Amino acid sequence: MAKFAKRISNMQASADVIRQLFEAMGDPETISFGGGAPAREALPVEKIHDIANEVLTREKRGIQALQYGNPMGVPDLRKTVIERLLAPKGLKAGMDDVLIVSGGIESMNLVSQLYLEPGDVVLVEAPTFVQAVQIFQLFEAKVIACETDNNGLVIDDVEAKIRQYSPKMVYVIPTFQNPSGRTTNLERRKALAELGSRYDVIILEDDPYSEMRYSGEPLPPVKSFDTTGNTIFVNSFSKIFSPGSRLGYIYAKDEIVRKIYDVKTATNSHASVLAQVICAEFFNRGLYEPHLKMIRDIHRERRDVMMDCVKTMLPPEIQSVYPDGGLFTWVELPKRINTTTLLAYAHAKKVAYVPGREFFVEDRDNHDNCMRISFGGVEPEKIRIGMDRLAGVIKAKL
Amino acid sequence: MAKFAKRISNMQASADVIRQLFEAMGDPETISFGGGAPAREALPVEKIHDIANEVLTREKRGIQALQYGNPMGVPDLRKTVIERLLAPKGLKAGMDDVLIVSGGIESMNLVSQLYLEPGDVVLVEAPTFVQAVQIFQLFEAKVIACETDNNGLVIDDVEAKIRQYSPKMVYVIPTFQNPSGRTTNLERRKALAELGSRYDVIILEDDPYSEMRYSGEPLPPVKSFDTTGNTIFVNSFSKIFSPGSRLGYIYAKDEIVRKIYDVKTATNSHASVLAQVICAEFFNRGLYEPHLKMIRDIHRERRDVMMDCVKTMLPPEIQSVYPDGGLFTWVELPKRINTTTLLAYAHAKKVAYVPGREFFVEDRDNHDNCMRISFGGVEPEKIRIGMDRLAGVIKAKL
Repeated sequence: MAKFAKRISNMQASADVIRQLFEAMGDPETISFGGGAPAREALPVEKIHDIANEVLTREKRGIQALQYGNPMGVPDLRKTVIERLLAPKGLKAGMDDVLIVSGGIESMNLVSQLYLEPGDVVLVEAPTFVQAVQIFQLFEAKVIACETDNNGLVIDDVEAKIRQYSPKMVYVIPTFQNPSGRTTNLERRKALAELGSRYDVIILEDDPYSEMRYSGEPLPPVKSFDTTGNTIFVNSFSKIFSPGSRLGYIYAKDEIVRKIYDVKTATNSHASVLAQVICAEFFNRGLYEPHLKMIRDIHRERRDVMMDCVKTMLPPEIQSVYPDGGLFTWVELPKRINTTTLLAYAHAKKVAYVPGREFFVEDRDNHDNCMRISFGGVEPEKIRIGMDRLAGVIKAKL
Repeated sequence: MAKFAKRISNMQASADVIRQLFEAMGDPETISFGGGAPAREALPVEKIHDIANEVLTREKRGIQALQYGNPMGVPDLRKTVIERLLAPKGLKAGMDDVLIVSGGIESMNLVSQLYLEPGDVVLVEAPTFVQAVQIFQLFEAKVIACETDNNGLVIDDVEAKIRQYSPKMVYVIPTFQNPSGRTTNLERRKALAELGSRYDVIILEDDPYSEMRYSGEPLPPVKSFDTTGNTIFVNSFSKIFSPGSRLGYIYAKDEIVRKIYDVKTATNSHASVLAQVICAEFFNRGLYEPHLKMIRDIHRERRDVMMDCVKTMLPPEIQSVYPDGGLFTWVELPKRINTTTLLAYAHAKKVAYVPGREFFVEDRDNHDNCMRISFGGVEPEKIRIGMDRLAGVIKAKL
């Protein structure tokens, strides 16, 4: 059979992990803290129903929703992004600076296609989002990890590695990071934008969780400190609207967006217009703000229940991250416990999580005691039951 | 500013053409035979309205439509593809052989990502679909054209070029080709599949138009003659359901589909679930067959009116393709007329088409007398008005 491209073998390890993640969602009796999905109760089904009902008529808008669209995205939705999502963060974008994509993942794919040559270096956080690593590997980049602590990326380490490796890009999720739940502090955000400008490196800022804040004060994005256009800000509608709609956006300097337009055209022409039209209408009708309050309330309760379980059910020597938002906490067990082998015992007790080593690109064996616990998709009472099961599994190994 | 990857400059010429195509759709007074969109009257707005109305409830299906999905696609839609779209063509696919993508273009992107290394050769028809060329160039492939005649790809030339260039892939639209409207005959389809097997070359068969047949008898796809798995069959729901939904599918050997799954995951996770669920339901309710009859009737009338105009309005020395289906005819003017310079005169008279040279990867100056005329998106009475304008513009130059 005809040979696959070399890039395919590069991505194999991460691809296997991700395939397992998708396929492990199966057993209905298992309480899974594994997936990264938001609460099903937070999906605005009725509102989307009503909008679809009114939009899908043989008027201009109904036809528009089903016909070919422009690769930039539906103007109404780009306007919404600029006015309702970027402006409140202190980001002043124009219509030529924003392009709609088919979900958050696609942003990473498009930006990689625009910039990465085989052998280019991409710096990431340790730990980081495994699907982003898979994409960088698919473009044959060398992915190198930078140190993080409870305040996010350690800037000195980033600068040292920029000097050492001359990377093309630094990939960062500054707020309620996946998988760690940590947030990069203000000073480091500023420093990161400045590093991008000083060394002419792309800072790829991925921001899917910042709207899902349950406590503490919002921080301005890295992009707000960017004076040269080196920071590219990408985001997703998955958490604040619906994951299945596959919508997201890229905000960058217009000359970069013009090139992304070409790459987007060659990837899949444009995002689903039907989904775009419904999403824009969702914002235009003023449904977003009350919806956001509702999903914050739902997920805040889950965060609170989860962190209470972590504190009261797990042995006291366990370290965990208290997240001010997002969907994840990060748990570090004593070094003698291997979370990959532990997972079989957890599955037997009908509970699941993702072993921490999967989120590291180097030095994985040193993180065999970590796990990512996702609380977004599990109802509060099931969080208690699941964490009780997990605590039992862990204690049996101590 | 950080440098773009080399692949970006490779694609520049075709990207410029495509951007112009998208942006030329503007002026409402111009009758455009330029775009490749199907008739707006053929979009099943009411049916999609009713389905969305019933599917989007807080039941299992409504939640499913908005939540993350599997990269393979929604099982219902894959089953529909297998039973309703592939089986009638004599293609016997299993569930592991079919993956749903975000529109037809994305298939070319995914297959390229799976197979193409920089410098690999891809053989295409002369003329061919310009967006496919753009994708192959984005993967830094060398795109080489093979001869075509009124029966499609000239097989001897394909075989000679396989021997000369050892290509990774042959890209072909065998039925109602874009841009020429031509169809590859039965014998050549068989020969093409055999060439793929004999030389271990991927035959990428793109089939977006075959359901839109208005006269003549259906031909089996190239894939139906494939005994080794070297042919990959890709298709789109754009013409038979809705372009704006961005849905398509890939049918290939399961071991190839397993790899495409990984690449799809890294591109954008999966196609819009809402669009997939609505599309599957459209088929399951038996709405597809009457819809297909309706869109064939609409487009057959347009084809008939267009070909009547070509015959009666254009000067007799003009050559044209009579298409048995699809959206395009291909017109060759006397050599002394340059269709690129003519386009400015056409625009002044409020009519548009695409100059033929844009569809060639080599020897473009030799096709400066050609044009692609798309009749799918223009109402019959407007076809007459537009062709009258175009005939005037052409005659003024003769």
